[in-house]
Amino acid sequence: MIKVGLIGCGYWGSNLLRNLSNNLGFEVVAVADASETRRAELCRQGVLARLLETAEGVIAMPEIEAVVIATPVATHYEFARQALEGGKHVLVEKPMCESLDRAEHLVQLAKALNRVLMVDHTFLFTGAVQEIHRMIGHGDLGRIAYLDAVRVNLGPFERDVNVLWDLGPHDLSIMDHILGEEPIHIQGSGYCQTGSCQADIVYLTLHYPSGIIAHINLGWISPVKVRRFVIGGSAKTLVWDDLSTQEKLRIYSACTKPQQDRNTLMSEYRTGDVLSPRISTHEALAGVVEHFAKVIFGQEASIMDGQSGLRVVRVLETAQKELAQSLAKVRSLKGDNSGNRIRVAGS
Amino acid sequence: MIKVGLIGCGYWGSNLLRNLSNNLGFEVVAVADASETRRAELCRQGVLARLLETAEGVIAMPEIEAVVIATPVATHYEFARQALEGGKHVLVEKPMCESLDRAEHLVQLAKALNRVLMVDHTFLFTGAVQEIHRMIGHGDLGRIAYLDAVRVNLGPFERDVNVLWDLGPHDLSIMDHILGEEPIHIQGSGYCQTGSCQADIVYLTLHYPSGIIAHINLGWISPVKVRRFVIGGSAKTLVWDDLSTQEKLRIYSACTKPQQDRNTLMSEYRTGDVLSPRISTHEALAGVVEHFAKVIFGQEASIMDGQSGLRVVRVLETAQKELAQSLAKVRSLKGDNSGNRIRVAGS
Amino acid sequence: MIKVGLIGCGYWGSNLLRNLSNNLGFEVVAVADASETRRAELCRQGVLARLLETAEGVIAMPEIEAVVIATPVATHYEFARQALEGGKHVLVEKPMCESLDRAEHLVQLAKALNRVLMVDHTFLFTGAVQEIHRMIGHGDLGRIAYLDAVRVNLGPFERDVNVLWDLGPHDLSIMDHILGEEPIHIQGSGYCQTGSCQADIVYLTLHYPSGIIAHINLGWISPVKVRRFVIGGSAKTLVWDDLSTQEKLRIYSACTKPQQDRNTLMSEYRTGDVLSPRISTHEALAGVVEHFAKVIFGQEASIMDGQSGLRVVRVLETAQKELAQSLAKVRSLKGDNSGNRIRVAGS
Amino acid sequence: MIKVGLIGCGYWGSNLLRNLSNNLGFEVVAVADASETRRAELCRQGVLARLLETAEGVIAMPEIEAVVIATPVATHYEFARQALEGGKHVLVEKPMCESLDRAEHLVQLAKALNRVLMVDHTFLFTGAVQEIHRMIGHGDLGRIAYLDAVRVNLGPFERDVNVLWDLGPHDLSIMDHILGEEPIHIQGSGYCQTGSCQADIVYLTLHYPSGIIAHINLGWISPVKVRRFVIGGSAKTLVWDDLSTQEKLRIYSACTKPQQDRNTLMSEYRTGDVLSPRISTHEALAGVVEHFAKVIFGQEASIMDGQSGLRVVRVLETAQKELAQSLAKVRSLKGDNSGNRIRVAGS
Repeated sequence: MIKVGLIGCGYWGSNLLRNLSNNLGFEVVAVADASETRRAELCRQGVLARLLETAEGVIAMPEIEAVVIATPVATHYEFARQALEGGKHVLVEKPMCESLDRAEHLVQLAKALNRVLMVDHTFLFTGAVQEIHRMIGHGDLGRIAYLDAVRVNLGPFERDVNVLWDLGPHDLSIMDHILGEEPIHIQGSGYCQTGSCQADIVYLTLHYPSGIIAHINLGWISPVKVRRFVIGGSAKTLVWDDLSTQEKLRIYSACTKPQQDRNTLMSEYRTGDVLSPRISTHEALAGVVEHFAKVIFGQEASIMDGQSGLRVVRVLETAQKELAQSLAKVRSLKGDNSGNRIRVAGS
Repeated sequence: MIKVGLIGCGYWGSNLLRNLSNNLGFEVVAVADASETRRAELCRQGVLARLLETAEGVIAMPEIEAVVIATPVATHYEFARQALEGGKHVLVEKPMCESLDRAEHLVQLAKALNRVLMVDHTFLFTGAVQEIHRMIGHGDLGRIAYLDAVRVNLGPFERDVNVLWDLGPHDLSIMDHILGEEPIHIQGSGYCQTGSCQADIVYLTLHYPSGIIAHINLGWISPVKVRRFVIGGSAKTLVWDDLSTQEKLRIYSACTKPQQDRNTLMSEYRTGDVLSPRISTHEALAGVVEHFAKVIFGQEASIMDGQSGLRVVRVLETAQKELAQSLAKVRSLKGDNSGNRIRVAGS
Repeated sequence: MIKVGLIGCGYWGSNLLRNLSNNLGFEVVAVADASETRRAELCRQGVLARLLETAEGVIAMPEIEAVVIATPVATHYEFARQALEGGKHVLVEKPMCESLDRAEHLVQLAKALNRVLMVDHTFLFTGAVQEIHRMIGHGDLGRIAYLDAVRVNLGPFERDVNVLWDLGPHDLSIMDHILGEEPIHIQGSGYCQTGSCQADIVYLTLHYPSGIIAHINLGWISPVKVRRFVIGGSAKTLVWDDLSTQEKLRIYSACTKPQQDRNTLMSEYRTGDVLSPRISTHEALAGVVEHFAKVIFGQEASIMDGQSGLRVVRVLETAQKELAQSLAKVRSLKGDNSGNRIRVAGS
Repeated sequence: MIKVGLIGCGYWGSNLLRNLSNNLGFEVVAVADASETRRAELCRQGVLARLLETAEGVIAMPEIEAVVIATPVATHYEFARQALEGGKHVLVEKPMCESLDRAEHLVQLAKALNRVLMVDHTFLFTGAVQEIHRMIGHGDLGRIAYLDAVRVNLGPFERDVNVLWDLGPHDLSIMDHILGEEPIHIQGSGYCQTGSCQADIVYLTLHYPSGIIAHINLGWISPVKVRRFVIGGSAKTLVWDDLSTQEKLRIYSACTKPQQDRNTLMSEYRTGDVLSPRISTHEALAGVVEHFAKVIFGQEASIMDGQSGLRVVRVLETAQKELAQSLAKVRSLKGDNSGNRIRVAGS
């Protein structure tokens, strides 16, 4: 059993605590949370681990071999660095940290000290993504043409990150995992309801070397929740609706070749069967925790290692610059919008 | 009764013919279609109007006071110009024509000759857009923050225009109508399945002087048809699902202010009632035809005049340049994608 | 070409007229409609057939070989009888007529006079029912266990029949076609909003010799339209949602064997894939008209002959008695509902 | 604080335990479960209450003032009786017990001994039922005409009760609560997949003195889960879809008066707005537990007392007889189904 300490036990930390406790590979020996109220709650619930106030307290415990970090993003780097330097294996919440420099430092550190560094890209262990990964690996969809992800809802509004850094890592880590390539060009635009830089709506277009185009729509201010991920291939198109309880995945065996005859196609928008495969309904986080244990034991290679976390941060940082540029451009145009004419971006 | 000639009687032209015939303000005296088979069909169906092969034949008929043009886009300018010069009023299909220069010429011509020039932005006469226009006019949604339109399906693939020019005019004319302002900055990206410039998927972001951001997703290669138009306001959010037979419009009285307490909001993504108002189910095209008659008679000011058609073409032309730039950028990056690193657009 | 006369040209009659006109096997030589306004409309639309006021006028035309009857139910028997006696083939709207006696008479008459007698059970020619029929024939669903049909909407309220006789023939003719057996026991209950015998809501349970149970829910006063037909089999379950534009049929490969372990099943309500097969989107009525021609020409055996119409009427008549009994029982109980206790039906 | 003992800690018992523990009015002093494995689990989870093997052990504890019974239906009567005789207040799972006689005995006993007897009709404390109850009380729907409930899914299959007794109490207790009257006539039919008396599908029609008709469709063998409850009123119709996460209730302001003109109504199935009111998303079981405490303290009159449990059992028992009769009838008809003719039920 790996002796593990949990740093941060809020909403997601509680889920981690439950899954770590249920996993036979781990023994939770310490839990840190800055809130006294929260620690008192954990005590009443019969948590047997030592309850501490600070991350440093956990990291300082010599018997602890691994830490799991579920604190606000701004603290990820510092706690992960200390833990790695203290000789612990680390599983850190997404996004790995708030800048590419820091992400690179953590990866180097983990490599130098020969410790496991993992980022909790939970979705990779959902039945849906596992099935998608399997299908793409088998070539079931044909050559991938495009991805289209929509992840919008109404709040909660994070205080320390904007919607790009909050929701973006989900789709970006999934795309990284299933495509196995990095984007070479990113376009982005966003909207700040409050006028601050804290984007509420973000649109990204990612262009990949293979020619694939991926579009991501993230939002915090939609009264209708949407979790939709489309993968268009030359043979089939897959639609993943994560809010569907019974048919999360649908595979359309539609042919997308241009048709000769316009009129016949008018009333028939799909030309093949639709299949909704059965997928596993296990809890993804249980898979993440099990994976962390196996990677530490050297039984598995990690599918969510520091490198993957770094690649996600790289896209986030680039996209953030794009958002800033786009907003700056619009502001400058508003300054002299004489005649109200359209200007081509970049010209 | 206005003596009217119809130029082009394919899929949409047939709908125009039926609505012109049913309208008491018009008498259809001639129909032109290049296809002999099509003319024979019209004859068998008992069409009483004169059946001609060419647009010129219709335009040359002195008794004709108005023409309706439902031919491929590339011919719009030429037929409209001839008709205006021949002293006819003109209703032309969307998009008005394929370049801003030509659009401007038609507008000037109509003004100089004192003829009515209208563009068939049919959606403006749907019950849904009429209700949306009414609500925004009354301030029911509060201050508009963002628009988000998705218009994707599987074919039909047009031969003479890409998906931007085929589907784009719908959303652009609606936005022009309900917002009453023109975008000052446009970002765009697209995907060409075939490698040609004939885009199959297009993403546009429009920035308006008022701060509104509008995003449009157009596509021809989605096996699932989507017609979704969201208007987010400070007071309410409206979702228009044009494929719903019974509840096309839904108005969410959700508050989008950031919340203090993250946890309580987690399980409750909307915070108010949802209303689906009854809307008219009349045929929009009947409204367009009636409007054309009333504008000719001087009884109504046009809501889809040449200027509105021109504004739509201006956005299309700008967006087209954006698409070309985006594609060129990606191609140049692919040429030297050494290291596979992301490059910021515009840098 | 079979010279055909159409009797009744209202809503459904117009569809018949269009399909008869488009079919190469028929020449429509006469159309009768009691309404002068309607006849004037048909004239304006360029209908070339002779326009008459009465059914008798059509039946009296010696050159007519076949008639299609689309008039109110109460007139079906009389017009069909006259037409058969006049030596015409007959296609009559559903339900065939309003009593079993009359249905039997028509069947005998057609047999004696060697004329084709067909009932327009249109749904049998939809792509959905054709696919269902094929699947059941191939044993794809396993042994059929139950059918469950819901057909409810808001109006239109017929004046001459109740909801049982108006909507019931659809599901009853489909069940007759796909099961190939007749029910041996029928239970029914209904609701009359107005207090008259004109039922607005009807529930039927049909028990078949093979053990199959079929339940039908018909209604005129539901604001939400539902068209749902479920076929539960030992191997698979099929759900037909006729209002879905893109996935009318879904086949669930769920196993319905009781499970050992309750808890594992709790969160997983289906245990297999879901398939939505592509089905034909042709117009069903075109198939009916084509079928009528082929049966007259002796090229096909009828799948909707007088016998099938008679079987549907037999169920309707039995069900009507059941409804009456059920209502009578409730009324008598209301008379002396002392103590407000439940009474078992039939005791 | 009321000292409470929980008898049975399986799936639902765990939920009760959590809610009792969270409620300030209760102190859970003992939990009984027959399974040693389950007791070991509870121990590991840090449950502080005394863990016992038998219900008798809990009932025998003198300090216990109230017991909550969440065991199989067959044991409800015995445990509730013992607890009441032991002077405890009782909250028992639905259905209250398996016969009307026993239900009456429990009600008498509770009255004689002046103890609280409550049945856990959990749905009465959902936001949906609370809103429905409020609306009907205010007359918002007009005069109620009909109820239509569908509650079907795929398993879990209970071993000790059929689908009528398992799922039926939910809809029956809701109807009892919102209508405030008892049915005077019940019709029922069912289907036994296995041929045993353990019904898998049940259809009930309930007739009420006021003229209301209620139909209930219960099933265990549907691969598609449905939770749908419709209330048709003279002014509005309410549709409750309990599986919808965002719009559980919809109120259709449709008018159900027969229309003069058939054709105009054809394409317009609803004639008014649709409203989806915000409803509370609290956990219903927390409300039940709070209610139990307040009833014990004399602060509230019970809305789910022994009488309401008894009324539900009365309907269940009557319906069960109806099912048996219906099945017997079908079996006898199969014995001599000469000619395969339909027989009218009851004749």
